[in-house]
Amino acid sequence: MLKFSIGVDLGGTNLRIAAVDEKGVLLEKVTLGTKVALGRDHVINEMSDAIRHLADKYRPNYSLQGIGVGVPGIIDMKTGMLRESPNLPGWANSPVHSQIEQRLGTRVILENDANAAAFGEKWLGAAREADDMAMLTLGTGVGGGIVLGGRLWHGMTGMAGEFGHITVESEGVPCPCGNRGCLEQYASATAVVRMAREAIASGRAPGLDRAASSDPEFSAKAVYNLAIQGDQEAKRIFGRVGRALGIGIADLVNALNLPMYVVGGGVSSAWEAFSPFIFEELRQRSMVYAATAPEGSLSGGQGASAQVEPGGPTKTIVTRALLGSDAGLYGAARLPMIPS
Amino acid sequence: MLKFSIGVDLGGTNLRIAAVDEKGVLLEKVTLGTKVALGRDHVINEMSDAIRHLADKYRPNYSLQGIGVGVPGIIDMKTGMLRESPNLPGWANSPVHSQIEQRLGTRVILENDANAAAFGEKWLGAAREADDMAMLTLGTGVGGGIVLGGRLWHGMTGMAGEFGHITVESEGVPCPCGNRGCLEQYASATAVVRMAREAIASGRAPGLDRAASSDPEFSAKAVYNLAIQGDQEAKRIFGRVGRALGIGIADLVNALNLPMYVVGGGVSSAWEAFSPFIFEELRQRSMVYAATAPEGSLSGGQGASAQVEPGGPTKTIVTRALLGSDAGLYGAARLPMIPS
Repeated sequence: MLKFSIGVDLGGTNLRIAAVDEKGVLLEKVTLGTKVALGRDHVINEMSDAIRHLADKYRPNYSLQGIGVGVPGIIDMKTGMLRESPNLPGWANSPVHSQIEQRLGTRVILENDANAAAFGEKWLGAAREADDMAMLTLGTGVGGGIVLGGRLWHGMTGMAGEFGHITVESEGVPCPCGNRGCLEQYASATAVVRMAREAIASGRAPGLDRAASSDPEFSAKAVYNLAIQGDQEAKRIFGRVGRALGIGIADLVNALNLPMYVVGGGVSSAWEAFSPFIFEELRQRSMVYAATAPEGSLSGGQGASAQVEPGGPTKTIVTRALLGSDAGLYGAARLPMIPS
Repeated sequence: MLKFSIGVDLGGTNLRIAAVDEKGVLLEKVTLGTKVALGRDHVINEMSDAIRHLADKYRPNYSLQGIGVGVPGIIDMKTGMLRESPNLPGWANSPVHSQIEQRLGTRVILENDANAAAFGEKWLGAAREADDMAMLTLGTGVGGGIVLGGRLWHGMTGMAGEFGHITVESEGVPCPCGNRGCLEQYASATAVVRMAREAIASGRAPGLDRAASSDPEFSAKAVYNLAIQGDQEAKRIFGRVGRALGIGIADLVNALNLPMYVVGGGVSSAWEAFSPFIFEELRQRSMVYAATAPEGSLSGGQGASAQVEPGGPTKTIVTRALLGSDAGLYGAARLPMIPS
């Protein structure tokens, strides 16, 4: 009997629940809106009902390995407390882990959503062949996850992988975390829109100005659309995204010397616009990268992820994620399959 | 029969060789000048003779476990090649590992000197109780090492731990590595002297000017002596050292969430002058640090290293190294004792 598990991606906007078998085949995916306004209890109840429904549906033909839940925010792994969660107002400092377990009456693995996404890309995505990898997720904020030896590296209290708060400009834009010049302030969707509005306010970005005026939901996607149409200011903004990522990834390469760094999240759709700047910064800012960069590839070895080198990897691959918004869902489903 | 091993710390100035027993007791230490000018062969011959002498002397009463050698520079662990070594001119791109093994006729473990120092502090120094830790060594340059699960984390090709090249000022001082604003440009002994000479040139540092004029070997130590006497410019320089370290360590805390970060190397003698600025930056720049900082301790929990918390550590300790210049020597001796 094939095993399966339930993965949950609990976002500020969508609540998604999937049944996935042990080979990575999606059995079923349910997408619900996260009714944040109705409060934590409501969301946890709705999630628990959907989990129970999916688990019961596939139990006759598969054996259930467990339930993994990815949530945005900083989780204290030792207490199961959600410490901070900007996208889930009112959830901070709540014992989310035990609340979900009580509702379901079974063990649940709670994980930071970016860690879950890293684990998903490692299982079925860009980092399939890499035992050691880091992922950066560029969404509303910038998150991250580290996999070492095929397992998530949580650090002491589960807070490892907060790459969005690496300092890339020591006197840069203030960040709600208390720091200035965090990577998140230059490489998140929020940052792209802020930089666009700054450019509009300066009067030097007529294209962005027109787009913003005509679109009440002016977004990072709209800025990207202008960039691929050749708008100079939009292109400059993604240049800044890439350079900030280049500084942050160079720090990681210098510190960790991992074989693979995967860039995912919604903003990674703009990979073509920002990635050349990542590689330019990496070559200048990391002698470790310069010594291990894939040869003859300005783009940093796209597709090289599929190669398995005898004796282990020797090249540093920086590449975009492959699973899109499903990375965290697959990663959450994978959690109960790997004994931690 | 107690086991012992030979550790070597091959520096640009001193070549030190020690016999250490498995409990960490120093049996004998030999210090020779590194006669870099006489060439690589000469240095390796002299080192091999001294290793053989010590090994033969203690073999009747102890069983030899192996030989560990710490060298400055970037080692490609897969090939045993020394890739770069600014302090050993003429050694770059040489097969140092096989040359030493040939000379001795036995297996030798080659390791980056900062990794060896980290391993030494983990074994017998400030990080004795930490299974996971990082060390920064502030010397001529800034090096680093990471220990995870009690073992050195080498990364893909042995280049992990290059903390000296973390970017702390994106448009800062150019570094020979190709980057700008590397930590090394603000927190090494070389950087302290450079910043002092900059202050003298600006005309605003009469104290430093007098010290430099009267001392042909004007050094970071001289700047520190002025700082503890209250010289404002000298104090400002160590403020900059501390702030740069704070940014770099905050990046590491955010990325890795380790329980312990140890600061060693010659410049760490000035701990009292620069460490308050490390903690100031850490609290602002790392929400992970803010969430895990030792309570009631502005100095970051000095002495907390001796506590073992049930269930594992929950506090982030940043502290100075304890073994001084012997860290690398003990660490090198430890290498053959831990199966890798």
